Amino acid sequence: MTTSQNHGTSRHQAESGDNEHGRGSGDERAVRAELTRLRQSIDNIDAAVVHMLAERFKATQQVGHLKARHHLPPADPDREARQIARLRELAVSAHLDPAFAEKLLNFIIAEVIRHHETIAGTTEDEAGSAH
Amino acid sequence: MTTSQNHGTSRHQAESGDNEHGRGSGDERAVRAELTRLRQSIDNIDAAVVHMLAERFKATQQVGHLKARHHLPPADPDREARQIARLRELAVSAHLDPAFAEKLLNFIIAEVIRHHETIAGTTEDEAGSAH
Repeated sequence: MTTSQNHGTSRHQAESGDNEHGRGSGDERAVRAELTRLRQSIDNIDAAVVHMLAERFKATQQVGHLKARHHLPPADPDREARQIARLRELAVSAHLDPAFAEKLLNFIIAEVIRHHETIAGTTEDEAGSAH
Repeated sequence: MTTSQNHGTSRHQAESGDNEHGRGSGDERAVRAELTRLRQSIDNIDAAVVHMLAERFKATQQVGHLKARHHLPPADPDREARQIARLRELAVSAHLDPAFAEKLLNFIIAEVIRHHETIAGTTEDEAGSAH
């Protein structure tokens, strides 16, 4: 006689919560709690990213003013190529899709260049009256 | 006889490529140094953001698996609306353009939904063979 009768299929079904998708409210509560826990982490990370990017734009605004004051072009393709290569490497080591990291940086850089062009325009006007 | 011959205009022109504004090489070095300093901060922030987003995707992957396992839809418009409203507020308090923060979140969410759909597809296949 074997002990294969102890396999307990019905108990297994009840625990996995998959008898025709009829999840008990306890299981549903557990799923909600887990979802809330994960979403709180996501919200914390988003707040951190927003604040990091605010700091990043403070630095790029300074770069923009420096470039405008010294008549350097707003965009710098060599610098951007180096940034993209570096971020792709960092993404790989952090198990993040490097293509996504590159798209994200391009998205941020586009915003930075828009800022630089605004600054360059403003400084040009100021320079015009201050010369 | 003056020492103006030592001005070395041709060397200066080669370095700065800009003798109309006649900046000394010392000024140019200072500008370069300031640009490097700011760019190092930007690179540090980018590395932090990449690692924060890697952590964010770890959390959203878990959300994706949870949703797929419990047959919840990959996208959640109510949650997204709350996230966008919250991030816009955070952006304002951090002196970041709220429109930019919203565009950025939408950009990230689009990637997350793509991941969730992939997970849902994979889990469907696994479920099909494991049932």
